[in-house]
Order: sequence, then C-alpha cells, then structure tokens
Amino acid sequence: MLINGSPFTSLTYFPADNKCPEFIRIIDQRFLPFQLVFCDLFNLEDTISAIAEMKVRGAPLIGITAAFGLLFALKDSPEQETGMNTHLSKTLNRLLQVRPTAYNIEYCLDRMLQAKKEHEIIKGAPPSLIVLKNLFLTRALELLEEDKTVCRRIGESGVELLKKIAAQKGKVNILTHCNAGWLACIDYGTATSPIYLAHELGIELHVWVDETRPKNQGARLTVWELTQNGIANTLITDNAGGHLMQRGLVDIVIVGCDRVTRDGNAANKIGTYLKALAARDNNIPFYVALPSSTIDWKGEATPKAEDTHLNIPIENRASSEVSHVEGWYNNELIPVLITDKNVKVYNPGFDVTPAKYITALITERGICPASREGIIKLFPEFKAGI
Amino acid sequence: MLINGSPFTSLTYFPADNKCPEFIRIIDQRFLPFQLVFCDLFNLEDTISAIAEMKVRGAPLIGITAAFGLLFALKDSPEQETGMNTHLSKTLNRLLQVRPTAYNIEYCLDRMLQAKKEHEIIKGAPPSLIVLKNLFLTRALELLEEDKTVCRRIGESGVELLKKIAAQKGKVNILTHCNAGWLACIDYGTATSPIYLAHELGIELHVWVDETRPKNQGARLTVWELTQNGIANTLITDNAGGHLMQRGLVDIVIVGCDRVTRDGNAANKIGTYLKALAARDNNIPFYVALPSSTIDWKGEATPKAEDTHLNIPIENRASSEVSHVEGWYNNELIPVLITDKNVKVYNPGFDVTPAKYITALITERGICPASREGIIKLFPEFKAGI
Repeated sequence: MLINGSPFTSLTYFPADNKCPEFIRIIDQRFLPFQLVFCDLFNLEDTISAIAEMKVRGAPLIGITAAFGLLFALKDSPEQETGMNTHLSKTLNRLLQVRPTAYNIEYCLDRMLQAKKEHEIIKGAPPSLIVLKNLFLTRALELLEEDKTVCRRIGESGVELLKKIAAQKGKVNILTHCNAGWLACIDYGTATSPIYLAHELGIELHVWVDETRPKNQGARLTVWELTQNGIANTLITDNAGGHLMQRGLVDIVIVGCDRVTRDGNAANKIGTYLKALAARDNNIPFYVALPSSTIDWKGEATPKAEDTHLNIPIENRASSEVSHVEGWYNNELIPVLITDKNVKVYNPGFDVTPAKYITALITERGICPASREGIIKLFPEFKAGI
Repeated sequence: MLINGSPFTSLTYFPADNKCPEFIRIIDQRFLPFQLVFCDLFNLEDTISAIAEMKVRGAPLIGITAAFGLLFALKDSPEQETGMNTHLSKTLNRLLQVRPTAYNIEYCLDRMLQAKKEHEIIKGAPPSLIVLKNLFLTRALELLEEDKTVCRRIGESGVELLKKIAAQKGKVNILTHCNAGWLACIDYGTATSPIYLAHELGIELHVWVDETRPKNQGARLTVWELTQNGIANTLITDNAGGHLMQRGLVDIVIVGCDRVTRDGNAANKIGTYLKALAARDNNIPFYVALPSSTIDWKGEATPKAEDTHLNIPIENRASSEVSHVEGWYNNELIPVLITDKNVKVYNPGFDVTPAKYITALITERGICPASREGIIKLFPEFKAGI
C-alpha cells in the first residue's frame, strides 16, 4: 500500500551481495505515525527482539518475521544432523515463546520445517546445511508471497459485503479495532483488505478507528495507513463504539484476529469481545477477517465447542504499557505517567470473542460461518488433520 | 475521606470575614494524582470555568458547585425584582449549558430557586436581594450537607450486596468505570460508598479500575482515592473488563451515573454500556449507584420506556482529549500526541445503558429495580410530578 504516494510492503528480503550479508528490512512500527524508520534484521536475535519489542506486530507479519528468524538461525547451526536438529528445536521454542497468542508464528515455523521433512521424504536423507538454507529461504519467500496473495483474496471475499451495504445505504460506515491493516501483514491487511478493495471500486467509505489501548495501534497505525491510502476515518476511544452503534452510526464491524479455534472462537486484541457484544445488541454484523494460517486446527478440542478458547494462551504484558502512554512531544517520543506512581496494573493483551457473536469469518477462500462445520466446508484439508 | 491520612471533602464553603469575601475551596482535580492543588472560587465566572475546565467534575459535585455559582451571581444582581429575575434566569441558562448531560446541575439549581419560591408563598412577596442571598446560602449549604448524608446512605444500601458476596466467596472483586468516588461528590462517593463502608466493616475487597479514556478519571482519580483510603485496586484498560468477566475475576460491577431517566435508563461516562453488556453476557450483577438528585423525572416521557434515553443530551467534547493524552513527565503535566497530527476525532462524553441491563439502582433510600415502577416505589414523590 502507499506511503506518501509510493507503494511499500512491511517486510522485504535482501539477498547477500559482496558488501553485505542477507537481511530483511522492516518498518520499525514503534515510531509511527511520527517518524518513518526502517530497520534491517540480520540474525535470529534481531528478529526475536523485533517481535518482542513490537518493531513488527500483527499476527501475519510476526509469523513471517519468525520464519526469516529460523532461516537466519542456520548461520549458527552445526553442520551435523543431530546438532542441527537440536539447534532448530531450541530456536523454534524461543521463537514460539516471544508472543504466545498469535497462531501464525506456529503456522509459519511448521511450514518451514515441512520443507525439511519433504526433502527427507523425497531424498531419503536429511539435507545438508547448505541445502537446508536454500530450502528455508525458498519457503520463507513463499510465505511472504502467499501472504500478499491471501490478503488480497480476503479483500475479494469481503468486498462483496461492503458492496451490498453501499447498494442499500450509499455509504458504508465500518468500525475496526486495533490494526489489522497492511502494517500487520505484508500488504493489503486482513480487516482492511475489503476496505482498500472497496475504495479501489469507488465505494464511499468511512472507518471508525478504535484507539486500542494500551498500545494505541488504532490511533497510531490504522489512522495513519488509512489516511495514507485515501480512506476517510475518524478516531474514537475504545469506550465510544457501543454508543455509536446505539445511534446507528456503524453499518458493519470488521476486525482481524490472532488465533481462531477449530470452533470459530476468535482471539484478538483486548477489547474486541466488547465490540462484538455491542454489535450483537444493535443487530450490526460483526466479521473477523483472517488468513487460514490463523486457524489453530492443532489446538486440543474440548467437549463443548464454546470452550476451545480456554486452550488459547493469553499474553500478559508489561504494567508500564497501562501506567504510561507513549506519545510525541517536542519532537520526541516519550512515555507520560497517567496514574499514581505506585499503581498495580493487570494488562492482558487479548480476549476471545465467542463464535456465537461472530456473524462470519472472511477468509482467502470466501466467507464462512464461525463454526467447525463452516471452517471445514471452506478448508476440507483441516478435516484430515482431526 | 482521607488524603495522606487526614479527612477531606471535595468542596468547602468559607464565609466572608474582615480580610476576604466568601468563597468555596475545591481541589483542582486536573492535577491529581500528581499534585494536590486547592483552588478558591469567588464568583460566578470562577464556578463556571471550574466546571467547564473540569477542575471539578462528577455529577453531584458539579451540581453543588453550580448552586454556589448561583449564590455568587447575586453579587452582580440588580436590587429590583424584574432585573433580579432576568439576571437569575440568564445565570441559570449559562450554568445549565456548561455540561449538559449531568442532571444534578438542573436539580441543584431547581432546589435553589425553590427557596425563593417558598419565601414568596410564605411571605406573599418576593425577597429583597439581601434576603435572597441568605436564602440561597442556606439552601446551598443544605445541598452540601445533604450530599454527604445521601452518599453515606447509598453506601449503607449497597454494602448489603457486598456483604452477601463476601459471605459466599470470602473476598469481593468489584469492577468500576470512571470516578464515581468521593472526588465526584462531597464525601464517600456514589459507586465507591458501598466499598468504603464494606472496608470499614473489615470485608476483604479488591477493585478493578477502568482507566476511562479519554480523560482517564479511573487511572488518575479512582486509583488515587481508593489507595489513599486503603482499598486494594488494580488499574486496567477500558478494553480489559470483558475478558476479566469471562475469566470469573469480577463478582459485581458498580458504576455511578450522570442522569437516570424515569424509566431507569442510565447515562454515564462513555464506555459504561459496554461493561453492562459484558456483565449480562457473564451473569455478573451490574449496579448503578446514585443520589435521587440524578433522576430526571422532568424529562419528557416517550411511548416506549426504552426510548426515554433519546431525551438525554450527550455532550460532545474536544478532539484534543482523544488525539492527546495528558500525563506526568519531568515534574510537569504535559499532553502528548498519540496519533496522526491531522486526525479527525469524534468524542462523545457519555453513553446510555438501557435499563434492561441494569440489575438495580442503589439509592439513598435503598435498592430498586431500574424501572418506572421501581423508582416510584422508593420515591413516591416523583409520581406526583408526572
């Protein structure tokens, strides 16, 4: 999507040349919207700290960053098979623990390791380190390209919903929470993809953007990326969405997500559940947009479908994110204290919206009910995995 | 309640002496919890700007401040009856427009004017200016004392609910939104009064405090006043309450309110409605604590009870409250920008929780259903006013 009129993606791979080893270039999103800072990641430690410190964030983007992390980890890998396997397994565990809620990291690392397994099946022997590097690079680049295609297709699925509303009402008022935009993916975004595609078609749109405390990804990232791409938007507090829905100012809610259980329960940024309740109370459709890489079909089933969400690990984050707010003042980014200095804080990063409050899931293969049956109908390959 | 171990109220009247004319002393709440700043208001303009700039806030407190504003306005009043009446009427309109959602301003000013009317009925003639000053002062001091008594009684009504939960669970986890504490009243508070009384009885309590964007009254005022009075509390984002309720970490929600319609719909700080929805979804009782001065029995009835909320004026506040966050940095209070500098903002200050989501109202005469019948049963005098 566009920044100052030029097309960008959120992560680019640069192969090694005479002067420089290979690296990935990301936007350090901690400085947006105040400064556009790029950052180059050369090794596993760089990628882990980029994910941990939220230089990159958003379930799809951290998945792909982790995939490159695994590739870069091979630089320190022993040549011999047993040593290599131990090294890979340790690296995997480290990457999985950085941000536990998003399923996409697990998905991308699985896909990376599959490249190794496929080679072993075909060749009847484990790959050498140099071959594995090639396999991993090829797979990481595939994941990168897939993300763009998949996000575009999510848009193609979702744009039909916006077309229908526009046909009835002339203009579409969308509410979104957090940032499930192109900055959270490689391009297009998930929740924003239908919006960008509708805009391309000339549909009149307006987006209500929840600021999304504590990290304010809505205020800082979503407002910025929508504005850069010509989409009318208005910033609101996280508290305001229910009131807007009561007053008829919202036609549709579209959010992204970090993990969907096999039963269609959706973990997303803390506060999403409250918007789903308000949408239900006011008969407003509530959609969750996601690539299928967000669906956790490996997560244990529970006797009751509505309980599978209990298997989702919810990340607890630092107190300082709530006791302080980071903002721009005198040309620098500073954290201001907003409460008693000895305050006690609890800061869960995500909540789970029960499937019953989700009108449907918007995926790269179309729109389906948020249920086991609904998901399997679009993704029959999951059934085989039960 | 206590500040640094000493008892305080939020507003004190000082009569004139040889050195100084009469005034009221308030806490300038804009500096809390970072600095304890007192501020003396001498005239109508002082009181209007104190309410407008939120030096004082909270429905009961701004009602009483407005009452003193009307008293102080007499300093500039013509002596003659017609001139005096015009002056009073203009003053009334100004005070009513400063913050339109809270009903208590209207209530307190009505009570002030009643003092004049009562005199006219008894004496058969309008009061002279000097007599009116005395009548107004007497009435304003009555309102001040009544507020303390009424808030204490709200506590006595509500503490029974907390006792019951404590008997079952040992400890009570309460969630509250915004600040309906003693800082919003004269003493005790509304939502906090049952909490302070339960604490006096030795009941083990813990309060989840919503930070309450955009002005962060929860983070800045509620955390501070609870901590100063020995009540265990934890600050959370406005987004987190639903998740806590899903996980069984909240036993009861108690909030204050700015206006209750005759049908029990309650306007309170923006975001209250979302917490009511989450409480209902998780079978958690949701109580609204209020003095009867918050009940708008004069508001027009609507054919459907659930529609009376449409008669509540919702205050729209400044964009800068959302685009910026005020906090403490390098020993000063500064506003940091948290979004794109050209952002468009919508900032409604209140929302309305429909009566059907309110378990009951906690009032100075006891607990009643949030309905016309429920309110009339406790306050039969309202029925006469229909």
